Amino acid sequence: MATASLDVVGIGNAIVDVIAHADDGFLAASSMVKGGMALIDEARAEAIYAGMGPGLEMSGGSAGNTIAGIASLGGRAAYIGKVRDDVLGKVFRHDITSAGVEFPTPAATDGPATARCMILVTPDAQRTMNTFLGACVNLGPDDIDAALIARAQVTYLEGYLYDPPLAQEAFRRAAGIAHEAGRKVGLSLSDSFCVQRHRAAFLELVDHHVDILFANEAEITALFETTDFDEATRRLAGLCDLAAVTRGAAGSVIVADSEIIAVPAAPVSRIVDTTGAGDLYAAGFLYGLTQGKPLAECGRLASLAAAEIISHYGARPETPLSDYVRAA
Amino acid sequence: MATASLDVVGIGNAIVDVIAHADDGFLAASSMVKGGMALIDEARAEAIYAGMGPGLEMSGGSAGNTIAGIASLGGRAAYIGKVRDDVLGKVFRHDITSAGVEFPTPAATDGPATARCMILVTPDAQRTMNTFLGACVNLGPDDIDAALIARAQVTYLEGYLYDPPLAQEAFRRAAGIAHEAGRKVGLSLSDSFCVQRHRAAFLELVDHHVDILFANEAEITALFETTDFDEATRRLAGLCDLAAVTRGAAGSVIVADSEIIAVPAAPVSRIVDTTGAGDLYAAGFLYGLTQGKPLAECGRLASLAAAEIISHYGARPETPLSDYVRAA
Repeated sequence: MATASLDVVGIGNAIVDVIAHADDGFLAASSMVKGGMALIDEARAEAIYAGMGPGLEMSGGSAGNTIAGIASLGGRAAYIGKVRDDVLGKVFRHDITSAGVEFPTPAATDGPATARCMILVTPDAQRTMNTFLGACVNLGPDDIDAALIARAQVTYLEGYLYDPPLAQEAFRRAAGIAHEAGRKVGLSLSDSFCVQRHRAAFLELVDHHVDILFANEAEITALFETTDFDEATRRLAGLCDLAAVTRGAAGSVIVADSEIIAVPAAPVSRIVDTTGAGDLYAAGFLYGLTQGKPLAECGRLASLAAAEIISHYGARPETPLSDYVRAA
Repeated sequence: MATASLDVVGIGNAIVDVIAHADDGFLAASSMVKGGMALIDEARAEAIYAGMGPGLEMSGGSAGNTIAGIASLGGRAAYIGKVRDDVLGKVFRHDITSAGVEFPTPAATDGPATARCMILVTPDAQRTMNTFLGACVNLGPDDIDAALIARAQVTYLEGYLYDPPLAQEAFRRAAGIAHEAGRKVGLSLSDSFCVQRHRAAFLELVDHHVDILFANEAEITALFETTDFDEATRRLAGLCDLAAVTRGAAGSVIVADSEIIAVPAAPVSRIVDTTGAGDLYAAGFLYGLTQGKPLAECGRLASLAAAEIISHYGARPETPLSDYVRAA
């Protein structure tokens, strides 16, 4: 097996976030499920945008955030995802490449616009997401750069990829290439509603194709259709080699072959916006893992990266994470 | 004179900001003057964007920030400025109208794209701005909505309007309409380099057409070509009815007919990005003035609005300013 020249390659929906404040009344009046991610069409996207307050635009996308986080920690990272050749597509490309990430996927020259996610942040710092998938629906197996995948220690996939029609195939192709090259495959379950939409497929995938699983409490209990966290953790241990389950302020639990490690959350003076907490947790964890750190240290790095991201608006680091970790 | 149905109408360059971190080395290598605003063409804009780090996009523009701040304080506000009918133009329009501001100026259907300002924030929280004026160069006297101007207690103009070729005429037309309607005219000097570019015109304007002047120390000393702040203040008193001069952490000085009032800066736990400090100072001041508050209270509101804006990235309020002022 060749030495990996990349730590992690991420594959995901390439999305620009539009972040705005909202109160619970706005969510209710707009029939939004607080804390969730809803897929919306362009007409609904226009309607929500017209009704919501002033926004701030930032590159996002779950795996995109994770990969940007890994680069910000000093890791060698690449990204595969589909934008359109429009203004927001240029913004997405600029932001991820200027963070030091390889991003070879060409932009679509026709079809829907670059994806947008309207993120409404309520005063309790919770985020409610509304995603217009746009150009992401055209990410397919042809976009999977086999040489890139083979170069990375870990191929990291976001569960949201199960929503656009062609991406599942891209997903399986990437996992196959990674394993043939002797590499690892990581997956994030993304969202409990996403798990409910694709439960059987996720179970089969985790069982046969995933080495490292990331989830939060709601996602893992949805996956195993149980309300008992400990039961979900036990079943997880039987299903994949390594998993990390986040529990918000209660920290996280790392489930490995022979051990279960409880990791405390890192302190934050004020939680401003929880968008990207899970994405950056995965960033810290995968960075630690690909640097050969012990699991407890991977968990510590994960908690720190998550702490930085929830202390401000947006899901990309405001402070270089390498500095943030050094200061902690 | 009819009762004013608006407190303030602002006229300015309608700009979307692209905010990124940079270190002093990047500014030096890019031949940028720290703390200043440079006008750049599209090619230079592309080159700077290619070299700079990941950004966050937010509506900006000096008078746009002021007007959004006045609306956020609860004032009745309107804005005149030129965007193109493109994605960033829609973002600008969405953000200012959803803040509660009337924005009747139609978008240009041809010509240059919506203006962008690349704002590089150094670790000392200073901002260095690079503006591609784009569609703003086509703002002209025909865009001045006479009925709108006549409805507002104050017409507020940004000095930056002296840069695009047609806007000076728009500027003078607006001031003329405001005074004919018995209203006041406010002006911000914007930037010391802008003052140097248009010094004679500004002196004539302030002397004959401006009732309320906003400036910082560098701008006012550039206007009077002196290094002595007290001398500049004295000359200011002879030139216009009311002026407010900001001095950063040292607070500000209000210069009125018969009195000079020193106003302390409002405390901030951490200064993150000074972009918009002057714009929001003007917002608080004009809001207080149009609510009939005493000058010392106008200064206090001004300092509070400026304090909110420098505590985070971007030049539009993150917290509704009415809440922020109530909490203070």
